[in-house]
Amino acid sequence: MPERVGKYTIKITNDVNIHCSVGIAGKKEGEGPLGKYFDVAFNDDKLGQPTWEKAESTLQTTAVDILLKKAELTTNDIDIIFAGDLLNQCISSTFGLRELNIPLFGQYGACSTMAQTIALGSIFVDSGAAGRAVAVTSSHFCSAERQFRLPIEYGGQRTPTAQWTVTGSGAALIDRSCIGASVKCITVGKIKDLQIKDANNMGAAMAPAAADTISCFLSDTGTTPEDYDLILTGDLGKLGSELLIELLQRDGIDISKNHNDCGMLIYDLEGQDVHSGGSGCGCSGSVFCSHIMQRINSGELNKVLFIATGALMSPTSSQQGESIPGIAHLVAVSSCGGG
Amino acid sequence: MPERVGKYTIKITNDVNIHCSVGIAGKKEGEGPLGKYFDVAFNDDKLGQPTWEKAESTLQTTAVDILLKKAELTTNDIDIIFAGDLLNQCISSTFGLRELNIPLFGQYGACSTMAQTIALGSIFVDSGAAGRAVAVTSSHFCSAERQFRLPIEYGGQRTPTAQWTVTGSGAALIDRSCIGASVKCITVGKIKDLQIKDANNMGAAMAPAAADTISCFLSDTGTTPEDYDLILTGDLGKLGSELLIELLQRDGIDISKNHNDCGMLIYDLEGQDVHSGGSGCGCSGSVFCSHIMQRINSGELNKVLFIATGALMSPTSSQQGESIPGIAHLVAVSSCGGG
Repeated sequence: MPERVGKYTIKITNDVNIHCSVGIAGKKEGEGPLGKYFDVAFNDDKLGQPTWEKAESTLQTTAVDILLKKAELTTNDIDIIFAGDLLNQCISSTFGLRELNIPLFGQYGACSTMAQTIALGSIFVDSGAAGRAVAVTSSHFCSAERQFRLPIEYGGQRTPTAQWTVTGSGAALIDRSCIGASVKCITVGKIKDLQIKDANNMGAAMAPAAADTISCFLSDTGTTPEDYDLILTGDLGKLGSELLIELLQRDGIDISKNHNDCGMLIYDLEGQDVHSGGSGCGCSGSVFCSHIMQRINSGELNKVLFIATGALMSPTSSQQGESIPGIAHLVAVSSCGGG
Repeated sequence: MPERVGKYTIKITNDVNIHCSVGIAGKKEGEGPLGKYFDVAFNDDKLGQPTWEKAESTLQTTAVDILLKKAELTTNDIDIIFAGDLLNQCISSTFGLRELNIPLFGQYGACSTMAQTIALGSIFVDSGAAGRAVAVTSSHFCSAERQFRLPIEYGGQRTPTAQWTVTGSGAALIDRSCIGASVKCITVGKIKDLQIKDANNMGAAMAPAAADTISCFLSDTGTTPEDYDLILTGDLGKLGSELLIELLQRDGIDISKNHNDCGMLIYDLEGQDVHSGGSGCGCSGSVFCSHIMQRINSGELNKVLFIATGALMSPTSSQQGESIPGIAHLVAVSSCGGG
């Protein structure tokens, strides 16, 4: 049963596990340093679909399909699915999951969605509201680019601080099977807005939210960065990660030794022309649900903090002169038997 | 602690209450049959803001502000807020709530969001994951119209099956104070898609989802429509409500005697030129959180099923030839001391 710890953290008290997980990716991601860890890396970013949006939906369909096969379950065994994406009205999730006939709560946390959906799934399973929950999210470079920035065909020059939206999806099955990694704690983030207005500098917009959530979690649990093998942010990218480390250092918290970022891990920052790194719900989704979960399951990593970060803006809000508020949700995961 | 009942229903076992609630509305809604029940009805639909989107954000800010004043609480007393709206990337919620500094999980359930946020808040409070939760949603005629349909200035002719997006917001405080109405059960809906493609006939697109959720709930709990004083759907409007009654009748379930719909209640369907009735997250939000909750709190209604319905589409998905899948989430509420 979930239990509140400190002001902002929720402790999962039963043995709630990420039983298994799936990370799938597109061509560019498959060619990156994590290529071999993905369950699937598609060579055709359209996945045989007529539009980029339908291709993104197919990423989610595929991720959940593989997840259920891995767990040897059917859709009928799943009590609830938490899903979300970046597209207007979350259509990747709707059209990717509509055939499943599983109760669904649509989520919107921008690029923080993977942590948000795992958090909700874990709280539902811990409390008994669900026996098995699925968490899933996706993003697609082409559907995001044309929705948030410019038509693909325009071939606009990207600024040095820009990030590259990952074509990918992550899915996780949460249950009480005592298999996989244990979910230990959740810290739900608050909106933080330091008035960043540059839509090509999402890392800077999201770093203050990540700093706040990490700081609240450490304070609530009375732990320090050294207590964790890895502090993994969602997709701050290179610039945002530097800012995060600096912001926390001002509060006397040093995460420089064990911090990494999904947006930096997924691409070869020098060789793949992605500027500040990867972004999108599918970035932290595919990285956490493949490479990181594999390292936890193998025992290479024991205690991991996963903090997915989201930039809560739309082209409309930016056109109306609004800043880009950030949010970050934290999930603390341990390898089975870990503390 | 939440407990699963049957295949799809979650029973709330502690005394979890909608401690208080707030419904606010725009000018047209204020002039409708429920005008006197809203906490506020604004005469200026721009609420003094430069854009319709910022006006919609202000609806949420105002609703939560009044809610906290009613409950004599501050933002610091709230553990989590569940919020969502219809705008791309849910910007009404982000910009309406960013100053609050309350942990937030953004929700997307289209017009089903009021039931979805109350459901999540109730499960969090029942399980101990939160002591106090706030559920909030909004919609605005002008921001929705120009995003989903046509520029306001165009003055397009509306079809007879069209619904009118409500300018309004609903907010509810959920806690264990033993004040207000009790939340008894939750049924999370599944996506239902009967291949309706007419974006001016949302009621038809959502009715099958409402029928499925109601049918699952009655079956899971072994109850019949006669056990409830009111079966209130979100915003099916006139046409969708007729379809819902017909669909359920085919399964031998007769809700014709105690069914009503927020979209039919909020306007004078004959006198206010709204065709099939109201729609939008703010429709079921403002109606349930004002008029209906007031009738429950006064004891006039004892057992109420609130089923908010959502149409999970975007202009992009419709332009790409997709149908309009529907979803409906159910919250069963009883007056305090009720069964």
